[in-house]
Amino acid sequence: MNRIYLDNAATTPLDPEVLEAMMPYLKEKFGNPSSIYSYGRETRLAVENARRTVARLIGAHPGEIFFTSGGTESTNTAITAAIRDLGCQHIITSPIEHHATLHTTAFYHEHMGVHLSYVRIQPDGHVDLDSLETLLRNSKERCLVSLMHANNEIGNLLDIEKVGELCKQYDAIFHCDTVQTVGHLPIDVRQLYVHFIQASAHKFHGPKGVGFLYINENIRIHPLLMGGSQERNMRAGTENVYGIVGLAKALEMAVNRMDEDRQYILSLKHELARQLQAQIPDIQFNGDWNGRSLYTVLNVSFPYNEHTELLLFNLDMEGICVSGGSACSSGVEHVSHVIQALRPGAKEVPVRFSFSRYNTREEIDRVVTTVKKLVTAPVGGHSSAVSL
Amino acid sequence: MNRIYLDNAATTPLDPEVLEAMMPYLKEKFGNPSSIYSYGRETRLAVENARRTVARLIGAHPGEIFFTSGGTESTNTAITAAIRDLGCQHIITSPIEHHATLHTTAFYHEHMGVHLSYVRIQPDGHVDLDSLETLLRNSKERCLVSLMHANNEIGNLLDIEKVGELCKQYDAIFHCDTVQTVGHLPIDVRQLYVHFIQASAHKFHGPKGVGFLYINENIRIHPLLMGGSQERNMRAGTENVYGIVGLAKALEMAVNRMDEDRQYILSLKHELARQLQAQIPDIQFNGDWNGRSLYTVLNVSFPYNEHTELLLFNLDMEGICVSGGSACSSGVEHVSHVIQALRPGAKEVPVRFSFSRYNTREEIDRVVTTVKKLVTAPVGGHSSAVSL
Repeated sequence: MNRIYLDNAATTPLDPEVLEAMMPYLKEKFGNPSSIYSYGRETRLAVENARRTVARLIGAHPGEIFFTSGGTESTNTAITAAIRDLGCQHIITSPIEHHATLHTTAFYHEHMGVHLSYVRIQPDGHVDLDSLETLLRNSKERCLVSLMHANNEIGNLLDIEKVGELCKQYDAIFHCDTVQTVGHLPIDVRQLYVHFIQASAHKFHGPKGVGFLYINENIRIHPLLMGGSQERNMRAGTENVYGIVGLAKALEMAVNRMDEDRQYILSLKHELARQLQAQIPDIQFNGDWNGRSLYTVLNVSFPYNEHTELLLFNLDMEGICVSGGSACSSGVEHVSHVIQALRPGAKEVPVRFSFSRYNTREEIDRVVTTVKKLVTAPVGGHSSAVSL
Repeated sequence: MNRIYLDNAATTPLDPEVLEAMMPYLKEKFGNPSSIYSYGRETRLAVENARRTVARLIGAHPGEIFFTSGGTESTNTAITAAIRDLGCQHIITSPIEHHATLHTTAFYHEHMGVHLSYVRIQPDGHVDLDSLETLLRNSKERCLVSLMHANNEIGNLLDIEKVGELCKQYDAIFHCDTVQTVGHLPIDVRQLYVHFIQASAHKFHGPKGVGFLYINENIRIHPLLMGGSQERNMRAGTENVYGIVGLAKALEMAVNRMDEDRQYILSLKHELARQLQAQIPDIQFNGDWNGRSLYTVLNVSFPYNEHTELLLFNLDMEGICVSGGSACSSGVEHVSHVIQALRPGAKEVPVRFSFSRYNTREEIDRVVTTVKKLVTAPVGGHSSAVSL
């Protein structure tokens, strides 16, 4: 049975061209980029070329790009620095952020006494900007605003320009978790008021274990990982050279083909929505799915019943890979904290379908056929379906 | 010209067998290990098998092994946790540690008011254990002792058993940076009193950007990188699956062939020392090179003069890759902080030769011939040598 992978918001397959770009650095070009001799210079050059590529693709200066081990390290670095180095004693975030943000900000609140506020989330999943402005206006302390660009579970897009304007107006530090949008939407930091954005390469067909943090040149912070003088003293540790090379290659490919991919993937999302709406009763789409939304994500809630309670499990049995929420919290959260925030106490089964350029129209058809079979089959009557 | 790579303490080439073990995870096995469906389960299994392998090879329980992005992250995690979570308000370290330890401990001292003491280093480069005991005995606060197992520049080995006994006696937390010894010397944490040890895969022919932190099961700490529930809530962020698989494979190979490699590499070190002593005047070997010392490192000081001031540069011109100290501080430190600690104010040119199983006896001969030519050539008289 061919598997159908529709969990691209969790991770994406590495593009073969990206792997090809990485291979020399997994083989003969192994030097430590900090070493001054030939082996070191060639890997240093690769790292610096990657930095220039990334900077160019998001409108930054190379000196504003710092390679990290991924989105979580980037988030932790930004939040820690805002509190420790930039005088932010009040964090404003939302209840539907990624756990890297939620757990880090909660830690600083609980253990370090930092003030913590959550903006109101509208029923459509968007941040209530009036609520944000009220929090900023009433704050007695300098604020860190940490809001994600696209929600990883429902795909809602933040009005990053408007949030940036508010942060500028109230002298707040703005950290925007752009893990789901870098490589998927055009980003030009020159057009934005933002201090930190970030990426994780494996979200756009790059390698796992590597990401970057953009740090606006106007702020000065201490590193989170201290030690050697790598990354201009901002992120110590021997560079993950092949990862960095792969990240830059993957981002370059993603940006070059963005328009084409976007159109194609959006057509898959719309087709899945159309077929599900036509064929499956009583479902609802979460978030502003057909409005200000990421084209890679469609989050669907099924009514909770004997057919759907093990829907994810049964889809897996049918070779269809989807998730109930963020991969980072699978098996931990009973129901996604994002869906809970939208409809507290709702008894439903949310399923996140997330797409990439590797998905096909035929896969969409098979998914809908399978979902229909599973949610309408007599309980116990379908050979491979399991119910409690 | 064939290059001769003698900087294996900085980084080592990836073993082709290790790369082979990684390849399936760079290709078809791309799932997020936190995902519950088939693609996720196969990578989760790979990560957990790697954890079991690493645990077995160092005598730990799998629940004590946490994968990180490398040695620096591991050091930062251990030191931060000891201060923040384990009540250590006094750090005892040495002036010849890696910068990951020196800069992190200095930061906590300068910015957080943590007490900081340095043990005395003997002229032979060993930690003065009487000095350590005096510091522990006189401390009014709980201590964190952070001392490296093998010094990365001069190769001196710590008496880890004795330091562990002292830490036990004085109820100190013991963090031992074992980055230069894991995969090179037998380590059995069951036989030691130690709370944190660590590794970086690229020091033993594994991939860059991945390491592990051993956390003794008797202590409870918060993570440094907070977020998702990966690594049993101890290190958030999508796992670097191929890196982790490569780390375990490299460590398994290193341990399996350790006796053979050790004997061979030690013979190279001794041969280089013998030939240098016989042919180059006025050199000295740094540290306890022929005693309690790592077999992979030989650190040689040349007298500072017109022949040696650009020795590293001229060796590079001859295709010989060696370093003046730690790669992590190349181009930053004028003279290595380790050599400065041994002989303050010494005017000399230290060169670290560090070996791997890929080096040959012929390379040693060529290195000595080249060094001899460079340090005795009339200034300006050798075609490829440069002097100021």
